Amino acid sequence: MTRSKWARGVALVGSGMSKFGSFLEKTSRDLFVEAYLDMQNSLMKDFSPEGIEAFYLGNFSSDLFEKQAHLAPILASWIGISPIASLRIEDACASGGVALRQAALAIASGQYDVVLVGGVEKMTNLSIAQVTEALATAADTQFEIPAGFTFPGFYAAMATAYMAKYKAPREAFYHVAIKNHNNGALNAKAQFNKTIFDILTSKKARAEQKGRPIPTWETEIEFLSDPKANPPIAWPMTLFDCSPVSDGGAVALLVAEEFAKDFTDNPLYLIGSGQASDGALPDRDSLSHIPAAQIAGQEAYEMAGISPKDVDFAEVHDCFTIAEIMGIEDLGFFPRGEGWKAAMSGKTSRNGEIPINTSGGLKAKGHPVGASGLGQVNEIWKQLHGKAGQRQLTGQPSIGLAHNVGGSGQTCVVNIFERRE
Amino acid sequence: MTRSKWARGVALVGSGMSKFGSFLEKTSRDLFVEAYLDMQNSLMKDFSPEGIEAFYLGNFSSDLFEKQAHLAPILASWIGISPIASLRIEDACASGGVALRQAALAIASGQYDVVLVGGVEKMTNLSIAQVTEALATAADTQFEIPAGFTFPGFYAAMATAYMAKYKAPREAFYHVAIKNHNNGALNAKAQFNKTIFDILTSKKARAEQKGRPIPTWETEIEFLSDPKANPPIAWPMTLFDCSPVSDGGAVALLVAEEFAKDFTDNPLYLIGSGQASDGALPDRDSLSHIPAAQIAGQEAYEMAGISPKDVDFAEVHDCFTIAEIMGIEDLGFFPRGEGWKAAMSGKTSRNGEIPINTSGGLKAKGHPVGASGLGQVNEIWKQLHGKAGQRQLTGQPSIGLAHNVGGSGQTCVVNIFERRE
Repeated sequence: MTRSKWARGVALVGSGMSKFGSFLEKTSRDLFVEAYLDMQNSLMKDFSPEGIEAFYLGNFSSDLFEKQAHLAPILASWIGISPIASLRIEDACASGGVALRQAALAIASGQYDVVLVGGVEKMTNLSIAQVTEALATAADTQFEIPAGFTFPGFYAAMATAYMAKYKAPREAFYHVAIKNHNNGALNAKAQFNKTIFDILTSKKARAEQKGRPIPTWETEIEFLSDPKANPPIAWPMTLFDCSPVSDGGAVALLVAEEFAKDFTDNPLYLIGSGQASDGALPDRDSLSHIPAAQIAGQEAYEMAGISPKDVDFAEVHDCFTIAEIMGIEDLGFFPRGEGWKAAMSGKTSRNGEIPINTSGGLKAKGHPVGASGLGQVNEIWKQLHGKAGQRQLTGQPSIGLAHNVGGSGQTCVVNIFERRE
Repeated sequence: MTRSKWARGVALVGSGMSKFGSFLEKTSRDLFVEAYLDMQNSLMKDFSPEGIEAFYLGNFSSDLFEKQAHLAPILASWIGISPIASLRIEDACASGGVALRQAALAIASGQYDVVLVGGVEKMTNLSIAQVTEALATAADTQFEIPAGFTFPGFYAAMATAYMAKYKAPREAFYHVAIKNHNNGALNAKAQFNKTIFDILTSKKARAEQKGRPIPTWETEIEFLSDPKANPPIAWPMTLFDCSPVSDGGAVALLVAEEFAKDFTDNPLYLIGSGQASDGALPDRDSLSHIPAAQIAGQEAYEMAGISPKDVDFAEVHDCFTIAEIMGIEDLGFFPRGEGWKAAMSGKTSRNGEIPINTSGGLKAKGHPVGASGLGQVNEIWKQLHGKAGQRQLTGQPSIGLAHNVGGSGQTCVVNIFERRE
C-alpha cells in the first residue's frame, strides 16, 4: 500500500511544546528546555536521554533575533545530551517541519535509531522594526525587499490575486481568523488563548452587556470590519489576518519504527513526507496558490499511499489567513477557488468536513517561526492520542497532516502521521 | 570489512569551487554559480541538472553577512533547479561538511538518488568589527562572548594550554603556516596563492636580494618572529596563525553508489562519515584537544573499517595553526603531544608521512566558513583524481579525509573518501 522509498519506517514517540507567547525574560534555551520537559511528560515509557543519538534543530534566525548562531550544539549541551551530532536546519518559517523530515531521513538511512528534533524561536525582544527587518531576510533581499515588499505585503498580493481570480469576498478571510481564535481559546498553550470576541470586548464591556446573546460569527465579522478595532496592515490583510510575533519551542522524538513500542504503547507513524522549493514571488506563474505546497503534498500523499480525503484533520500554515485558504486547496482538501467557500461555510471548523488548525493555528497559537512546524506536530500528537482536551476532535481521528511553509512559499514541507490500533 | 549502518552507499561524482578570496562586487549567488559551473566541468559525463532531486546548502550566516536567510531555495532557483527540496544546514564553520553528511544520509535512506551539496559564505563586505561580531555568534554568546572572548582568543587559550601541557615551542605553529602557504602557492584558487616569503618580501625587495639563497624555513621563521611583520592577534596566535576572512563557494554532487558510474568513470566513495558536538569551552575537561573531533573521527573510521594509518592525506580544519596541530592528534595521525613535533619535522608536508592541507588549508586557501568543508572535499577530489597540478601527491593516493570543525569545537564532522580501481 505504501510506496515509501525509505529503507525503513519512522515513528513519532514523543512530542512537547512550551507555551507560545511573548516572554521577555526567556531565551531560546529556556523555551527549548520547557518544550523538552513537556515532551518527557508525554506518552513515553523507559525514556533515557542517553539513548538520543542525534539532535536536529529547526531555527530560522537566532543569528538576528538573539545574536546566537551555532545553536544546535549549545541546546544539546544545555540539556546534557552532548556529544551527539547536532545541527541546525533553516528554511525560514518551515525550519521545524524540514528539521523533522531530515531527522526522519537520517533514521531511515540506518545511521540513527533515536533522534531528537527541536524547533525554537525567540522573537519578541526586538522592536517591531527590527523583527520586520529580520523576517524580511526570509524573502529575496536582493530583489523583493528593495521593491518595497514586507511579509504582510507578500500575502496581501496573494490575497488580492486570489480574490480577483475566484471572486472571493474580503470577509472569507475573517472566517479563518475567527475559527482559529475559537480553537486557540481552548488551547492553554496558545499565545492568544481567546476568541476574537473576547479580545475585542473588554471584560468590563462584556459584563455590561450581560444578557446579550452569545456572540455570533456575524458579531465578530462586524467587529473585524471596524478599522479602528482591526486596522489594515497591508490591504486586504488586516491586523487579525496576521499571525503574531512569538516566542516558543517545540520538540519531537523520532525513532526507527521497529523500536517505537520500546518508547510508548501508542506511537504515531510518519507515513508520508514531502518537501519542495520555489523561487521568489516574481518568479512564479501564479500568485493565487503556492506551487511548492502542492508538490510537497503530492509527494507526501504518494509516499503514504493515501489521498487528501483520507486525512482526518490538518494543521495548515496560516501565517496569514489567505495562507490557510490557499493551503487547503494546495493540499487537495478543496478544489481551487473553493477554499474560501469552505472557510465561510464552516467546513474547516472542528465539527466540519476537515478540521483545520484545531490548535488555533499560527494565527492564535502563535508563530515562533522555527518552532511552528513542530508545534503543528504537537497538535497532531495530542489529537491522535485523544489528549486535546476541550478541542478534542470526535470520531477517533487516525491520520493528521502538518503543512509548513517557509517565506512566501519558497519552501514547503508536508508530514503525515498515522495512529494504528 | 565496512561496518556501515547505512542502507546503501553514497558516491561523490562531481566537485567544484569558486576562487576563494575577497570579492567586493560578488554576492553568495555569484560565488555559488561559479562553484556550480566548476563542478559541471569536473569529471562527469551525461550530467543533466534535471536529475538533481534535492539541494543541501551549508551556510553559516548569510543572515548577518548579507541580510539574506532562507538562502537554499534562492540558490536553487538561481541555477534553475527549483522546485526540488532545498534546505540550509548550519553548524558554524562546519556547515559545509555537515551539509555533505546530511545529503549523504538522505541518499542512504532511499529518498533521493542524486543530491547537490553547496557551501557558500560572503564575508568581506562587512567591516572587520562587524565580521568579528558575526563570527562571535558561533560561540556561546550568553557566556563566552560577554567574558571577553573572540575566536582568536578561543584558539589562543587552546594554544596556551597545548604549549603548557606538551612543552611545545611557539615556533611549532609557524611551521603549519609556512607549510600551508607553500601549498597554497601552488593552488590558483587559493586566497593567498603565495608563500609567506613572497608575502613578506615585496617584489622590489626580492629583486634587490637577487643572488640570495632560496628562502629557507629558517628565513621564514625569522620573518614571522618579527612582530612588525607578524603582529600578535591573541597571544600566542599571531597574524599568520589565523585564517583569513574570505568569500567563496564550493559544490559537490552526491549520488547513490549504484548510479555512480552513470555520472563519471571515476567516482569517489564516501566510505566513512562521523559527526559529534560539544558544549562551549568552559564546559570541557581539556583545552588541549577537541573532543568532538576525536569522536567524529572514530565514528568515520569505524564506518569505513579503516584506521588512521590507512589515510593517505587529509584536509584538516586549520582556522588557526593550533587547530591543525590538535586536529592531526584528534584524528589519530599522531599521538597526543606529538602533533607539534610532526609539524616541525615536516611529517605533514606534501612529501611527508601524512600530507596535511595540500590545498593550502583554510590558512592559505581561505576560509569562507560555510564553503570551507566543501572546499576541503574539492581538494580530495583533485588529489584522488591526479588533478592537483603542481601540488599533486605522488604514489597515487587512494584515501583522503576531510575534518571540518565548527566554532571552537562545538561541532566536528569527518568525511572519508576512497578512489577504487
